[in-house]
Amino acid sequence: MELLKQRIQSEGLALTEHVLKVDSFLNHQVDPKLMEAMGEEFARYFKDHHITKVFTIESSGIAPTVMTALKLGIPMVTLKKQASKILNQEVYQTEVRSFTKDLRYLLTLSKNYITPEDNILIIDDFLAMGEAALGAARLAEEAGAKVAGIGIVIEKSFQPGREKLEEAGYEVYSLARIQKLGKGIIEFLT
Amino acid sequence: MELLKQRIQSEGLALTEHVLKVDSFLNHQVDPKLMEAMGEEFARYFKDHHITKVFTIESSGIAPTVMTALKLGIPMVTLKKQASKILNQEVYQTEVRSFTKDLRYLLTLSKNYITPEDNILIIDDFLAMGEAALGAARLAEEAGAKVAGIGIVIEKSFQPGREKLEEAGYEVYSLARIQKLGKGIIEFLT
Repeated sequence: MELLKQRIQSEGLALTEHVLKVDSFLNHQVDPKLMEAMGEEFARYFKDHHITKVFTIESSGIAPTVMTALKLGIPMVTLKKQASKILNQEVYQTEVRSFTKDLRYLLTLSKNYITPEDNILIIDDFLAMGEAALGAARLAEEAGAKVAGIGIVIEKSFQPGREKLEEAGYEVYSLARIQKLGKGIIEFLT
Repeated sequence: MELLKQRIQSEGLALTEHVLKVDSFLNHQVDPKLMEAMGEEFARYFKDHHITKVFTIESSGIAPTVMTALKLGIPMVTLKKQASKILNQEVYQTEVRSFTKDLRYLLTLSKNYITPEDNILIIDDFLAMGEAALGAARLAEEAGAKVAGIGIVIEKSFQPGREKLEEAGYEVYSLARIQKLGKGIIEFLT
């Protein structure tokens, strides 16, 4: 998505070979017009995938995902990050390890908001090791639902996330794919 | 806002005299069309307030707030909840106590995304004790900016939040005002 790549190039801060800050339009300050354009692009790409619900993980994925859900005319479900196990039968939970933030959390989904008939699109802001997206997919599949695809705003293509998701059989569509990061360096794959 | 009141009445779960769950359309599963309608309503109400930025607090306020920011044509800033103090000069932080969740966190705003010229609208999903909104207002004012108003999706009018915000001089606009909660009881103020 050209518009997004331009914003990453002009406003993104490559702090190290692995860390890209996009706090001016995605992760802290948020440009709603760009979010709408992303929602339109995800909806265009996945329009024939018969999606019934869009999942995201709190909290930076929410803005582009609610726009996608609006354009597709279906509900969004925000998966919660819980610090500890919820002891009841009303939720699905799975442990996710965040390498970027060096922590673990329990991704949580209420059983009320998924059925075996659901066909889920998972959207997240970043793809690095793929752990969050794989966790979201486990929750959908534990409920007997199908994962119809995974939409990513910014993919770090030099990390193994996409490969792991594709090996697991998921279709991945990323709006921007980054080949290389370094101090002051941001190179896109295509 | 009639549409919201109908959804609260038909889908809201009053668990106790203080707890209302609206997980089916706002806090876990999210109805994007309702979020868009809320964004239109907040934008309509505040359109002559010369707002330059909309603040919200992660994460349940993000969906209605990004829609409001889109309709107003201005950026959103998502204030972060940090567990511990960030030791640098690049952020404003203030402690907020959540009575509902019985915890404290440090509401955090990067200095890059606010100026003394800003005129801030603060939006949050619930208003109970007013602590989160007051914290957001403190951050804006610490930067020398003005708080132009506070928009709330669901106000618990039987708790002192609105009174505290109005006493501090802020204009509050709530889409739904709840007078009384109880097991199976949801009564609106108007």
